[in-house]
Parts: sequence; structure tokens; C-alpha cells
Amino acid sequence: MPAYKAPLRDIRFLLNEVFDYPKHYAGLSNGKDADPDTVNAILEECAKFCEQVLSPLNRSGDEEGCHFDNGTVTTPKGFKEAYAEYVAGGWQGLSHPTEYGGQGMPMSLGVIKTEMLGSANWSFNMYPGLSLGAMNTIMQYGDAAQKALYMPPLTEGRWTGTMCLTEPQCGTDLGQIKTRAEPQADGTYRITGTKIFISAGEHDLAENIIHIVLARLPDAPPGTKGISLFIVPKIKVNADGSLGERNSVVCSAIEHKMGIRASATAVLNFENATGYMIAEPNKGLEAMFTFMNSARIGTAIQGVCHAELSYQGALAYAKERRSMRALSGKKEPDKVADAIIHHADVRRMLLTQKAIAEGGRAMIYFAAQYADHMVNGILEGDQKKYKYWDDKLGFLTPILKGFLTEMGLEAANLGIQIYGGHGYIKEHGMEQIARDARISTLYEGTTGIQALDLLGRKVLLMTRGKAVREFTAQIAKFAVEHMRNAKLRRFAADLARYAAEWNVLTMRVMLAARKDRDSVSAASHHFLMYSGYVTMAYFWALQAAVASQKLAQGGEEKPEFYKAKIATARFYFDHLLPRAKGHATSMVKPSKSVMKLPVEAFSFDY
Amino acid sequence: MPAYKAPLRDIRFLLNEVFDYPKHYAGLSNGKDADPDTVNAILEECAKFCEQVLSPLNRSGDEEGCHFDNGTVTTPKGFKEAYAEYVAGGWQGLSHPTEYGGQGMPMSLGVIKTEMLGSANWSFNMYPGLSLGAMNTIMQYGDAAQKALYMPPLTEGRWTGTMCLTEPQCGTDLGQIKTRAEPQADGTYRITGTKIFISAGEHDLAENIIHIVLARLPDAPPGTKGISLFIVPKIKVNADGSLGERNSVVCSAIEHKMGIRASATAVLNFENATGYMIAEPNKGLEAMFTFMNSARIGTAIQGVCHAELSYQGALAYAKERRSMRALSGKKEPDKVADAIIHHADVRRMLLTQKAIAEGGRAMIYFAAQYADHMVNGILEGDQKKYKYWDDKLGFLTPILKGFLTEMGLEAANLGIQIYGGHGYIKEHGMEQIARDARISTLYEGTTGIQALDLLGRKVLLMTRGKAVREFTAQIAKFAVEHMRNAKLRRFAADLARYAAEWNVLTMRVMLAARKDRDSVSAASHHFLMYSGYVTMAYFWALQAAVASQKLAQGGEEKPEFYKAKIATARFYFDHLLPRAKGHATSMVKPSKSVMKLPVEAFSFDY
Repeated sequence: MPAYKAPLRDIRFLLNEVFDYPKHYAGLSNGKDADPDTVNAILEECAKFCEQVLSPLNRSGDEEGCHFDNGTVTTPKGFKEAYAEYVAGGWQGLSHPTEYGGQGMPMSLGVIKTEMLGSANWSFNMYPGLSLGAMNTIMQYGDAAQKALYMPPLTEGRWTGTMCLTEPQCGTDLGQIKTRAEPQADGTYRITGTKIFISAGEHDLAENIIHIVLARLPDAPPGTKGISLFIVPKIKVNADGSLGERNSVVCSAIEHKMGIRASATAVLNFENATGYMIAEPNKGLEAMFTFMNSARIGTAIQGVCHAELSYQGALAYAKERRSMRALSGKKEPDKVADAIIHHADVRRMLLTQKAIAEGGRAMIYFAAQYADHMVNGILEGDQKKYKYWDDKLGFLTPILKGFLTEMGLEAANLGIQIYGGHGYIKEHGMEQIARDARISTLYEGTTGIQALDLLGRKVLLMTRGKAVREFTAQIAKFAVEHMRNAKLRRFAADLARYAAEWNVLTMRVMLAARKDRDSVSAASHHFLMYSGYVTMAYFWALQAAVASQKLAQGGEEKPEFYKAKIATARFYFDHLLPRAKGHATSMVKPSKSVMKLPVEAFSFDY
Repeated sequence: MPAYKAPLRDIRFLLNEVFDYPKHYAGLSNGKDADPDTVNAILEECAKFCEQVLSPLNRSGDEEGCHFDNGTVTTPKGFKEAYAEYVAGGWQGLSHPTEYGGQGMPMSLGVIKTEMLGSANWSFNMYPGLSLGAMNTIMQYGDAAQKALYMPPLTEGRWTGTMCLTEPQCGTDLGQIKTRAEPQADGTYRITGTKIFISAGEHDLAENIIHIVLARLPDAPPGTKGISLFIVPKIKVNADGSLGERNSVVCSAIEHKMGIRASATAVLNFENATGYMIAEPNKGLEAMFTFMNSARIGTAIQGVCHAELSYQGALAYAKERRSMRALSGKKEPDKVADAIIHHADVRRMLLTQKAIAEGGRAMIYFAAQYADHMVNGILEGDQKKYKYWDDKLGFLTPILKGFLTEMGLEAANLGIQIYGGHGYIKEHGMEQIARDARISTLYEGTTGIQALDLLGRKVLLMTRGKAVREFTAQIAKFAVEHMRNAKLRRFAADLARYAAEWNVLTMRVMLAARKDRDSVSAASHHFLMYSGYVTMAYFWALQAAVASQKLAQGGEEKPEFYKAKIATARFYFDHLLPRAKGHATSMVKPSKSVMKLPVEAFSFDY
């Protein structure tokens, strides 16, 4: 397994040179303390913890996996100590309010923290990551007593939390949920049902686990309009915050998974477990979805994490492994053969990984500023502000989650490919990255769900194309501004063309949808991927523009960083962006290409 | 793990309706016995063995893996019995000469056998599969005594064989091989060195293992021109064919791999092991490569195998799992939700799998006729005939191996995707298919090596574009013939355009290569994938043409088979073929997009 090295130079480039985070933070109501020195100190401390504590546990955690014994789950060797260190460092509360014991930093810093944790050890990151979801839900919808009781230990990390949505018969289609909640005379509820795929649902890292559970009241209307939300602690909590007796929620098994094997995925059986309602009756789904956009960024970043780690591993190997000679002649004549980095096709793979990791990081850090504003809206109780920024974020979220996780999987697979047969062997750890990455396109809404959310909901239903018009206007503006710069002209010309085409395609899909609703689903995947390629192109051109300006100014100690940015942008435009052409062609094909075949004719056994 | 069902209807469609195998076999010197009734009986028996014996061992074999204990390897439970049944059925010698105890059938039937074995259980297939390589090498290059000694037990399957090429420092770059062979007074050689990644290198299925080993004579010139080929039996063989004493070749470990865990991948230490030279001194690589093209078809088919099995698993699930309603309205109003096969995006994934499995099968079965002729050339001692057909096959081989294994991996990953989160759980077996498939783009020449073989060697160096001109002429002819058929016009028009473009692109790449040799490597991946998409398009149009003709004739009992062919062809042209556009754009970009960045600037830690 490659030892993770936090790419601090690239992180600082985005924060300080591309997106002007210092100014952004200065303008946030909770950004005062996020001055450059503090941010720098946080980045460096976090990098140290991830490199020195989490990274060494990544492969051993996969090898050992989690242990299940009669309801008890034991995490792999070293995880408990690492988590204790994480809690001691105050990392869990980094971006949560000081009134609960947090550090009160903007949410974007939490995203960067997640990136480092997750690149070093995604399985580990699952435990505190899920807890964030529970914290956000309680912070937003809990009553004063619930907040007082649960937020401090969760913010400290002494307790963790989960999100219990999925049941055996349904994941995406939450309207099928069967778990029941029966009201009791004392105002509590008896929760009964089975939840599956509950990440961090049971483990030995924390004293208590606070489950956020979707369930139905006895008189609830059917479907999604009859779902309520409950707090169900693993161990009941006394009024003074001390731990009481065990609640009747039992982990009956953990899943055997392809990857993220050090992350415990629990089957939880609730049998008349005591629960406390949170948010209004039958409005559980709405509450659950408040932080959905920001939560999905936390999964989108997984694409960046695995691309980065796999790149780090593959780059080291490509410089060291010798095979054949470069087609243009010997590069290292005194050696038995040239290092494989001298072969163009190996470079194509390395540059693809680099383009995905750094291009994806730029996309996330841009969106994270929207998330900061959105969270500010919530913290300030300003619903309009929340809504405005959540909508802007909402357009980008499915692109980030859907596109970046697919690309992260590709990057991780290229990491194996660069190692050749050695990539298939466990000892190098490259195959683990691909297995760990494989979950990212499945959970938190599959790629198909992201595609439908983007095209059907965010673009067509909610904005009738306006979301695309606004975002492409930003791209077109950039293109116009750089069209006369000899170094950036090519990027600008391509961007102008794609920005225009994106609008045309949106229009065409919209028109087709009026007559044929299936065409939305048939086009959605291609629309998502097209949007992703064009969006990433914009952020690569943006990085190239900044790098080009810095090089023109001169005086940089390490100009190769900027040169690499420009070269990678060029690679992206020549070798990855053209894939958008295929998606553009396919998305406007009639839906009967996929819908005409009768179900019975899908067969392999005629 | 989906229970494998051999797709006999599709196999018969290709053999009898698309490619006219009965006529093909009637024209082969070793095809007389391959009459339709015999072929049918073989297909059905093989299907039964694969479905009933091999398929049930697929998941248990992965779970258990192989056991290593002090040089001894034990295969998973049931493998030994299954292999005994395979031997008893006479399957190993299906396509090898009767004089060695084989059934003397054409090679193509062996390819179809491999497809069924491999779809049911790729790990199992590795043992007899590697043996085929050893058999072919001895059959072609062994002297009379070697053939008499080794061929009968190998053809029977009582012994198995291996191909020992890779060493720790080299895989692709065989010129770096260090294993030494010292001549002895008695005409034998002492072989010393370490070979890694030796599939079926040690196991408990057979009495003896015959290793074919690449090694250097003491006076050998450096590089690839100094490599010789040796037979090194695990247990020495007496002149009468009985087993003698143990040879000094030891399995020191087996690899822990991402997938094909029931296939033992051995590290073999040769320490003064007794070897027998085969073929001429220093001409070992040439001998090894005689059957390279046909051997690579045996790996190319892996793409089809995993696509087929994953499709079978995903289709069953898509018909059964209910989630949400179709966008065009309820399809199963009496059910809690519609089966997910009613969602267009799920169909897109299923049709992609189906298009890859059946399109890939057609490509392989077409090429297998070339292989039949090529083998006939060898059996008849007709070097010119061998060379003619091997060259024709040689153009298709890298496309089949490179493109189909990449596509097989995509199909296997879609199988996981259709299952959603459940695809990530081991119990369903879908994730195993993706892990098993992952090796296919790495061994027998990585995709990058296939791409360079295709563009650099087969297209530019050997034929200066003629291979493309000839193959596209065949496509263009088909296009012209079907241009006026209303049902096929769209396919014909697209094919005509792509056939022309493929030639233009070849020319452009050829011109660029004169000035800039790196451009060949930089273009190779895109050229390979482009060639694959266009080739598969041709075979889909061909299948649609036959299906359309059959439907016009009428009277078919199950016309939906043909309707599905046409619908899948249409899907392929609308949703997969357009990807060729991106590759067409990227392959003619200047090589500096990938080569300009200095090695030092590839970094993540500036």
C-alpha cells in the first residue's frame, strides 16, 4: 500500500491562488477564526495525523477486516488507538459550533479534513464520517434538550452516530420503508424493524452510538409522505448525559464486502427499541435531506481520495520499474531498460490519474464555498440564504458525486494497470484502492440516481435549464476573458464551444422529455458524464490560467508545479474532454434504443 | 453467484446462422468429424458439465482459495473431483490430434469449450487453459521422442503444463530474463532461476506438471535473441513414460490476489533442475510466440465470459428487485414498485452487458475460423498457409484481447452497479466477477502492450496500414450491400462512415509517426479502442442483418431472439459506438500532450 503523503502544495494552490479562500473566509459569519495561519496549522496537523497514524493502518485494516461475535464488533488492530488520537486532537468538531465543543470552523475545512482522512484510510474515515450526518441532523432538527444531550459527546467524538435508512427491500425507494414507530405514553416511541448496510452501525471505537432512524408512525400515510425520523441510542442516555441501560437494538451481522473491509457495515435489528422523535411527524425524509447536498460532497471526495492515493502509488512504481525502451530512443542508456514512465501510454495513465485527482479537488473546493454559505444560512437561521446556496450547490452535487466517483474508480483501476500483473497482487495495495473505490458509485445514491437527480430534478423540473444556463455563463465568461491569451486560447475556444453545446443539448433533452418521459432516464447517464467532463475542463482551464499568470510573474522557487498544471490541463483537453463527444451524441438518441425491447426478450436462455 | 446457463441459442445462432460453421468445418482438413450433429452433442455435453459441475464451485472456490503448505498447493474443495471428471470426459484433447489421444476437432470448438468453462468458473479454466499452451509448444517444436513422451498424458489431462516466462524483474520485457540453462554431458540442461506469476505452477489436480521455461544458455547473446526454451517436468519422466524422481523445481509461495483466487499463481524456484531443450538454441521466444495469437484469443474470451455471467446475474436481479416507478408511468401497478428493469438507465446497463457479451462472442467466433485455418497450416506442415492465416488473425488478436477484456471489465462492473449496494456484498457473487475479470487486462500482454502490438507492429510496421484497408474493405462491402435495406440503413450508413474514417486516422497516425516516434505510443490506446468499437459495430450489424432476414422469412418459433438482436444492435450503435468519436479526436493529438512534462514534474509533493 502506498504511504499517503498529503498534497499540501496543491491544496494551498487551490485555497490561496485559485479560489481566494482567505477572502472567502473573511466574509463568512463563522470564518473569522479561519485566518491563513490557522488554516495552515490545521492543514499541517491533519496531514501529519493522516500520514503517520491512519495511512499505516490502511492495508492491515483491509487484511484483518472487522470481527463480529454475537452482536459485538471489533475493529482491526490499531483502529481504536487511532480513533482515540483523532478524538484527542479535536478533529470531529472541526467544523461544528463552539457551543457544542467544536472548533467552529467553516464546513469547507471539514471537507479538506475528510479528503486527507479518506485518502489515507477510507475505511477509518467512515466512522467519523457517518457521525457527521447524525450531528448535522440533530443540530438542525433536534429540540433544545436533544441538542444539549447529544451534540457535545458527538462533537467531541466520544460517541458516534449513524444514518439508518436502508432496509432489505429498499435502498433508493425509501417509500417502501417498513420499520414501525409506536408512540408511548411517556412521549417516546417503540421502534421495530430491520435496517441493513448501516455503516459504523456497531463497533468498539466509542462509548455510545446514536442512530438516526427512518420509521413509520402507526397512522402514517403510505409512501415517502409517511416517514418520520427518530433518535435511537445504542445505550440509553440519562438526563444528566450519563449512560443508562442498553437499548434493544442489536447488531445481528456485519456484511462481507468487496472493499472498505475495516469499515463495519451492520445489520441492525430494532425490537421495541426506545426512540425519540426528531423533526415533525411524517416529515422525516425532508429533514434527512437537508444536509443531503453537503453530505454527498463528503462522498464525492472519495473519487479524489482514491485517485490521489492510486496516483501516488503508481507514480513511484512508474519511475522505478524498468521495461523496454521508449519508442523515441533510450532514455536511460546505462540502465537495463527505461523506467516505464518514459512510455507514452504509461504517461497517459498517470496523467489521467493526476487530472482526475487534481481536477476533482478543484471542483470540490469550489463547491465547498457554496456549502460554507449554505451552512451559514442554517446557523444564522436565514432560510432564504440557506435555500439560495443549497440550490446552487444542488446543481453541482450530483455532478460531483456521480462523475467524480466514476472517475475515481477509473483512476484506481489505472493504478493497478500501471503495475501490470503486480497490481493484481495484494501486497502492493493497489488492488485494495480499486476495491475500496468500488463502493463510491453505489452508496449515497448510485450514479444512476445522481444522473436522474441532475437531469430530471435539478435541471428540468426545478430550473427548466436555468441551472445550466447560469453555470455555462460563468464558463463562457472565462472563455471570453482568455480567448486572446496565446497560452490559454485553446482552452478558451474549447470551453466556449462546450458551454454553448451544453445549453443546446439541455434544450433538446427538455423538448424530447415533453413527449417522452422515458427519454429523461435514457439520457440521464450521458448528461451526467457530459456535464462532469465539461465542468472538470473549466476547472482545469482555471488552474492553467492561474499557473500561467504565476509563471509570467516569475520568481517562483519551484516553477515545475505550475508547468505541470498547464501540461495536465492540456492533457485533459486532448485526452479526456473528447469523451464528452460520445455522450453528447448518445444523450439525444431516442429512448426507444433502450426501451423498445420487451422485458421478456431480455434473455440469455431462449 | 449467478448459476451459469450456457447461452446455447446464441452460440448456435453464430455457428449456424451468422458464420456458416458447417461449411467452414467441411472445408477443413481436420473438420470432417465436426459435422453439425457432433458439434451439437459436444456443445450440449460441455454446457451440462459447466452448469452442473463447474458453476457450483465458482463462489466456494473464491471463498476458500488455494492452500499453500511447504511447497504443496491444495486447490479448493471440489476442484480435484471436477478436474477428474473433466479428464474422464476427454475434454482436454478436444481440439488436439487423435494420434496423441485427442478428439481431433478444429481449434474453434476448443475456443467455445473455453468460453463455457471460463464463464462457469474462470479459476478452474486456468488449469487446463495453461496446459494448452504447453501442449501447443511441444506439438509444434518438440522432437519425436518429446512428443511421444509428453503429448499423450497432457492431451489426456493426466498431466498439466505451464508457461514459465515472467521473472521478478521482468514480465513484458523478456529480454531481461536471467534464468540460466547449463548444458550437461548427457544432452540435458541444468536450469536455475526464479519464475513468478506461474498460473497452475503447482497444484494437486494432476500427477505431473510439465513446465515450459524460458532461459539463457551460458554463451547466449544478450536480450531477446539469447533466450532458449526448455521442458522442465515437475517429476522426471522415465523413457517408458512412467514417473521417476522429483525434479529440483520448488514452489516457494503462491500469490494472494484480488481475484481468480481458486487459481494457484506460483513462484517457482528452479535449482539445477533437469531440463530438455525444445526448439533451436536462442530461438525460444520465436517458438513461444507461434501460438501467441491463438493463445491470446483464449484470454480475449475472458471478456465475453465475465460479461455473460455478470449479465445473467444482473438480469435476474433487475426483473425481481422493485424500486420506484418508471418515469413513463406505473408498469406493475399491483406491485409495491416497478421492477428496476423498467428504468431506462438500468436497461442501458443491461444492454451494455448484453452488447458486450454477444458482440464479443461474434468477434471471437469470427476470428476462430482464422485460427482453424492457421492450425491447419501447422498440422499440414504448410508454412505459407500458417503464415497467411496467422497474419490475418494477428491483426484481430490485439483488438480482441485488448478491447474485449476492457469491455468485459466494464460489463462486470455494471453487474455490480445494477445490484446497487447489494453488488458490493460477497454473498451475491457479483463483485467476484469484477475481481476475476480484473486480471484479464493485465496478463498475456497488458492492454497497453496490445495497443502497441496493434498500431506499432501489426498496422504500421508489418502492413503499413494494409491490415486496416483490408478489414475496412470488408466492412464497407457489407455497408454498401445493406444501404438500401430500410431496416439496416442506419447501421450501414454509420459503418461506411467509420470504415472510411478508420483509414484516414490510420494514415494520419502513420504520417505523424514518421516525424515523432512517441506519437505511436501516445495514439495506441485510442487506436485500439477505436478499432474495437468499430469492429464490434460491424459484428452487431452483421447479426442484425441475419436476424432481420430471419424475421422476414417468418415461421420462427421464438422470434423475440431475433428482435432482441436487432434492438441490441441499435442500442450498440446509439450508446456505445459513439465513444469512438472521443478516441478518434484524441489519437491525432500531438504526442507532447503526454510527453512534454519532464519526469521530475510528475509529483504530488512539490
